[in-house]
Amino acid sequence: MAIIVQKFGGTSVADAPKIRRAAHRAIDAVEKGYGVVVVASARGKQTDQLIADALELNPNPPKREMDQLISTGEQQSVSLIAMALEAMGHSAISFTGGQIRMMTDGAFSQALIMSIEAERIHKQLEKGKIVIVAGFQGIDKDENITTLGRGGSDTTAVALAVALDAEQCEIYTDVDGIYTTDPRIFKDAVKMDRIYYDEMLEMASLGAGVMHIRAVGFGMRYNMKIHVRNSGNNNTGTIISAEESEMEGVSVSGATVQRDMAKIGLVKVDNIPGNAAKVFAHLAKAKVVVHDIIQTEISNQKANLSFMIGISDIDAAKAAIDQIKEEVNCEEVFVRDDIAEVSVVGIGMRTHYGVAETMFGALAEAKVNIDSITTSEIRISCAVDRDQADEALRAVCLAFQLDKQPHDRKNN
Amino acid sequence: MAIIVQKFGGTSVADAPKIRRAAHRAIDAVEKGYGVVVVASARGKQTDQLIADALELNPNPPKREMDQLISTGEQQSVSLIAMALEAMGHSAISFTGGQIRMMTDGAFSQALIMSIEAERIHKQLEKGKIVIVAGFQGIDKDENITTLGRGGSDTTAVALAVALDAEQCEIYTDVDGIYTTDPRIFKDAVKMDRIYYDEMLEMASLGAGVMHIRAVGFGMRYNMKIHVRNSGNNNTGTIISAEESEMEGVSVSGATVQRDMAKIGLVKVDNIPGNAAKVFAHLAKAKVVVHDIIQTEISNQKANLSFMIGISDIDAAKAAIDQIKEEVNCEEVFVRDDIAEVSVVGIGMRTHYGVAETMFGALAEAKVNIDSITTSEIRISCAVDRDQADEALRAVCLAFQLDKQPHDRKNN
Repeated sequence: MAIIVQKFGGTSVADAPKIRRAAHRAIDAVEKGYGVVVVASARGKQTDQLIADALELNPNPPKREMDQLISTGEQQSVSLIAMALEAMGHSAISFTGGQIRMMTDGAFSQALIMSIEAERIHKQLEKGKIVIVAGFQGIDKDENITTLGRGGSDTTAVALAVALDAEQCEIYTDVDGIYTTDPRIFKDAVKMDRIYYDEMLEMASLGAGVMHIRAVGFGMRYNMKIHVRNSGNNNTGTIISAEESEMEGVSVSGATVQRDMAKIGLVKVDNIPGNAAKVFAHLAKAKVVVHDIIQTEISNQKANLSFMIGISDIDAAKAAIDQIKEEVNCEEVFVRDDIAEVSVVGIGMRTHYGVAETMFGALAEAKVNIDSITTSEIRISCAVDRDQADEALRAVCLAFQLDKQPHDRKNN
Repeated sequence: MAIIVQKFGGTSVADAPKIRRAAHRAIDAVEKGYGVVVVASARGKQTDQLIADALELNPNPPKREMDQLISTGEQQSVSLIAMALEAMGHSAISFTGGQIRMMTDGAFSQALIMSIEAERIHKQLEKGKIVIVAGFQGIDKDENITTLGRGGSDTTAVALAVALDAEQCEIYTDVDGIYTTDPRIFKDAVKMDRIYYDEMLEMASLGAGVMHIRAVGFGMRYNMKIHVRNSGNNNTGTIISAEESEMEGVSVSGATVQRDMAKIGLVKVDNIPGNAAKVFAHLAKAKVVVHDIIQTEISNQKANLSFMIGISDIDAAKAAIDQIKEEVNCEEVFVRDDIAEVSVVGIGMRTHYGVAETMFGALAEAKVNIDSITTSEIRISCAVDRDQADEALRAVCLAFQLDKQPHDRKNN
């Protein structure tokens, strides 16, 4: 029996009618002959409410207790979905993470999945039951409840699909799929029918919401096809999969903008081995997430070092730099807190020339000044003034025809 | 280290201030040198809300899923209490029923406790932690979550106290303890300082709220002292304990009234062995709870058989009787649906004469007609017209001086 995993996010199970709609999805798949495993998040704003309840009692709650608390949201969802399915005449059984031995390490609030006991689920599927599994949660070896962190239910779903050797993992959400860029900024953005793991990873790490980066990474590692689709309609969504030979040949698949960025520069650091490592070790200790490091040599003794961070990390980053700046003999530290980063992503860049020129040209024509540029194999990012960010994104989208489906684009 | 178990009901942990108050109770006991285990119910109306959510999706939800759902209420309470304790500078850890291996049978929604793994709790107490355990829930051998039914958190608390060999089990509630009778009907009722297990069992089975009968039975079986007290003040409540030699010598400890009763009579049943058994077997099959059976022989061939039931069971009882009445050759079946039962309870009855006369005299003086009388070793119950029930209770309370503490009563 082919197995399909369907994941429903919080908005897709927010109330009784939506729970019934999700249940109907599962039944549709059963009627097509699939063994169906449903993964669900907590209903609507339940998790936020529980977090608020916790903070009212303790501004800094112990993470173990926080996981014990918020994991109840998913447990409620799965039992309610099972009840809805039973009311519709289908046999169903719900499981918590613990009940299917979703074993994790003991890193509360950001646990990593170690193993899953697929046997208990297979047994229930063989009995003809629809199996509903609580997303976002597992247990450690001491039976403590652990949660997987933001987007954890996506990760649960993909991991289960892998463990059960499912045909596909469907991620139901409140949008039609993955868009070429954020439609709130570029209204002509189009939904992609397909995106490759590498591209999705880059897009997710650049802040494109929809799918959690860990889940995409899991899918890529085990080559599990992920179908992101709308729980409100029957449209085909976006398939996230491995590269195929019949590549459509577009250079750029999507574009992103990260608005709340800051740039920190260390001017004239001693250019000796180990200095950069010291700087970033301090930043890591301060839990600052660093993007896009640029180092330029200005003499054979001195170099300039700059990097991008989220704006909320500015204070932590400055404190960390203050501790190290004399040791690395830095002459000056500057901070720009008015930066945004516009990026284009596409595995086609590996084989297409001229992508950088097209991007820089489009920005120049829109009179957007580029502060700095970084690239990876399948990505080009430009730091720009935050005031010009949306304008910059739109210019880039038009230049790469991201308002059109790939087969309709010209001269790609 | 002496251990104390403290149980807080839903109203005692309904919001953040009440959770803090409960946490302070635990800290008080810690500061007196106790190892403290807290058992908590779901907050306020959480369970009712979850049941409503379930019924919206399925008017007849599977019991396993119902237990999976409603057990989350207690899980939320215990993690929040642990957070509150940590915020007050005390080390705490919360456990679900499953995490302490509160093993039950698989009777969802009314599971029976089989065993408890006290070791995990002892280990945490030895580390100086306050341990918070979710009431009302356990797991069966297949890791399914089971709940213990109404009043289950009381049972959890007493069972844990027994398993941990605690000095005492404190039951915190929103009243000062056990009263001689219901103060809503007899306003001069007084709180008892002490009541014996046998008496409490009778009172509870006669509908006196406060403590659940299973928890009292557990306490009696293992001789665990239970202290029922108010979570809103520091008053001593009521101690439920085994009989002691220095008995205070009162004949009647408390009085109850059960208003919504009905009486069913089978007139002129064949008086042959096995007929009564057949009648009550049919009623049990129909899940009718039967109180106070009276059989009177009217000839050596015929007997009258009557019994009391809750008024909500009338239809089920009548249907059950209809199936059997020809077989037992019953001439007539009558139903009285306007009955209430007034009872007095006291282990002193075993040694005191004249209790029945005092009760019947008080009712006669109040012009209350007695429909029927039943007695046990420590209880006398009179069925009366429902219209006269409150009046009857008050008359009986005054006759036995239940408005006074035992040592203030005269001629007991």
